[in-house]
Amino acid sequence: MKLATLLDNSRDGRLVVVSTDLERYVLATDISATLQGALDDWAQAKPALQSLSDQLNSGAIKGEAFDQVKAASPLPRAYQWLDGSAYLNHGELVRKARNAQMPKGYETDPIMYQGGSDSFTPPHHPIELITEDWGIDFESEIAVITDDVPMGVTPAQAGEHIQLVVLVNDVSLRALIPDEMAKSLGLIHSKSSSAFSPVAVTPDELGKAWQDGKLHLPLLSTYNGALFGKPNGGRDMTFSFPDLIAHAAKSRVLSAGSIVGSGTVSNKLDGGPGKPVPSGGSGYSCIAEIRMIETILDGAPKTPYMSFGDTIRIEMNDANGKSIFGSIDQVIKKHDV
Amino acid sequence: MKLATLLDNSRDGRLVVVSTDLERYVLATDISATLQGALDDWAQAKPALQSLSDQLNSGAIKGEAFDQVKAASPLPRAYQWLDGSAYLNHGELVRKARNAQMPKGYETDPIMYQGGSDSFTPPHHPIELITEDWGIDFESEIAVITDDVPMGVTPAQAGEHIQLVVLVNDVSLRALIPDEMAKSLGLIHSKSSSAFSPVAVTPDELGKAWQDGKLHLPLLSTYNGALFGKPNGGRDMTFSFPDLIAHAAKSRVLSAGSIVGSGTVSNKLDGGPGKPVPSGGSGYSCIAEIRMIETILDGAPKTPYMSFGDTIRIEMNDANGKSIFGSIDQVIKKHDV
Repeated sequence: MKLATLLDNSRDGRLVVVSTDLERYVLATDISATLQGALDDWAQAKPALQSLSDQLNSGAIKGEAFDQVKAASPLPRAYQWLDGSAYLNHGELVRKARNAQMPKGYETDPIMYQGGSDSFTPPHHPIELITEDWGIDFESEIAVITDDVPMGVTPAQAGEHIQLVVLVNDVSLRALIPDEMAKSLGLIHSKSSSAFSPVAVTPDELGKAWQDGKLHLPLLSTYNGALFGKPNGGRDMTFSFPDLIAHAAKSRVLSAGSIVGSGTVSNKLDGGPGKPVPSGGSGYSCIAEIRMIETILDGAPKTPYMSFGDTIRIEMNDANGKSIFGSIDQVIKKHDV
Repeated sequence: MKLATLLDNSRDGRLVVVSTDLERYVLATDISATLQGALDDWAQAKPALQSLSDQLNSGAIKGEAFDQVKAASPLPRAYQWLDGSAYLNHGELVRKARNAQMPKGYETDPIMYQGGSDSFTPPHHPIELITEDWGIDFESEIAVITDDVPMGVTPAQAGEHIQLVVLVNDVSLRALIPDEMAKSLGLIHSKSSSAFSPVAVTPDELGKAWQDGKLHLPLLSTYNGALFGKPNGGRDMTFSFPDLIAHAAKSRVLSAGSIVGSGTVSNKLDGGPGKPVPSGGSGYSCIAEIRMIETILDGAPKTPYMSFGDTIRIEMNDANGKSIFGSIDQVIKKHDV
């Protein structure tokens, strides 16, 4: 089934079930007012939501026209947002761009940071920032939403706690990262409010594309109207979502509604750096990567980071070319203080 | 006024107003079911809660006996928990103990990490961990809870966003910190679930002890029944709470219910390392600090980190010796996987 949260004048919006084709929705507030509420009591809520979804998809319930522009991030705010870095190619390239080393053991021990989750940007709302000088970049990612995960869960057990899958734009402020990483305690300034896809889907909606705790479909990033990246989420993902969840839960429980992200999706091409999409490559899910490739090829980066007015669209289509999650579609906008 | 959350069978508990002397309470659920709900609509909720508090303290409402053992952390889960390190003496000592350097600019640019906030431990519940090998330590701290803070807020403006003050036990797993800090992206494994004092208080309840965005009273830590530390929260705090809030909000809004912590409260004595309480010093708010002092004095630490069964009690009294926040009172307990 597919779930979304419609914006209203509240902080948590209204839970709706969306048809598989994203054309129609029905309010689910009789089951739970909010998605967090449903996740808090998932064993009860899931079958009721599934029944509503079945009725909507069969036509037994007609529903209303679904307009993803009116959607909030599925969890407009969350109690936990942990973002891994499962595609090592991304971390390697970005660190090369900073002349920084990968941390010891990075091939066996996932990198992960705890992100701000107190207010996520709706997927079709602007990314508001005070200055372009911060080095504004998008990061196209996949994430999962869990139910309650026990402390010490194993990767083999962790998969069953994945209840929903979403896309993410994990906005990064590249110019602020080096100073924060020098302090070694994480990213407060360098990560703005993330946006999530309008629709969250249960893993069974993904069919064969969901295998081994990975999502095996291209993640499409369109920057200022041109396709910028289409790396496959199932390729070069060193740590699966169950691996990332088990890592996160080593010494803590993860409560229902925890979001665990993949990090920037990134494919190697022929064992080397990715090529731009126009030349047949998989391209990039952030600007930092193409800047690194430019540095390798030409000695210096030439693609600038984002300016006010630049747009980024992130989406994923199924094997038939149909949008699964709706799109994240954002413009960078000056925030007046 | 003083607010608390009583445990029930829900994740967010029930909001109550507590009398100034902590003896009685009255349910505030007619105003808001939860503290987060009250903070979400603070302009409406605050005067209504204040009126209830006035009636409780005057005796116009009799109320029920308040038993802090039945309290959850005031926010049993929160959308944001950012913990600074405002007492530089703590960071300096702890890094010396690890043979690590303080980051560049640490005297002007606060250190801060984003902590897990999806489930806080109730203040009188055990700290459950899988193994003692993780180097279990308490950290006694002060924190504030904000309303909505705009991006780019100045320190001069930030103070007005402080709505509540609490105490915290920010449990640290010392043996896991070096590997995570080497990865430079923050603390996922090294910080277990924090616990907050049973009662959250508005700054006006603190009278003259609340000045310059700091809380000028001793923070008492009692370890296994013996007083271990009594450093004054107003002393040696390089960054005030408004400073910490402004730092956190540089490139993001902080939504209502964000918790911003001071880091481990730590006083220098005569410009040098603190002395144990029995010898007239202010003592320590965590074990890591006394181990550092032991290393300086004797060449090696002798106080072990916490074992299953060890207890830690954290509280603060007013000038008349009356408890302001109730106590955090926890035992370390083995968590069975």
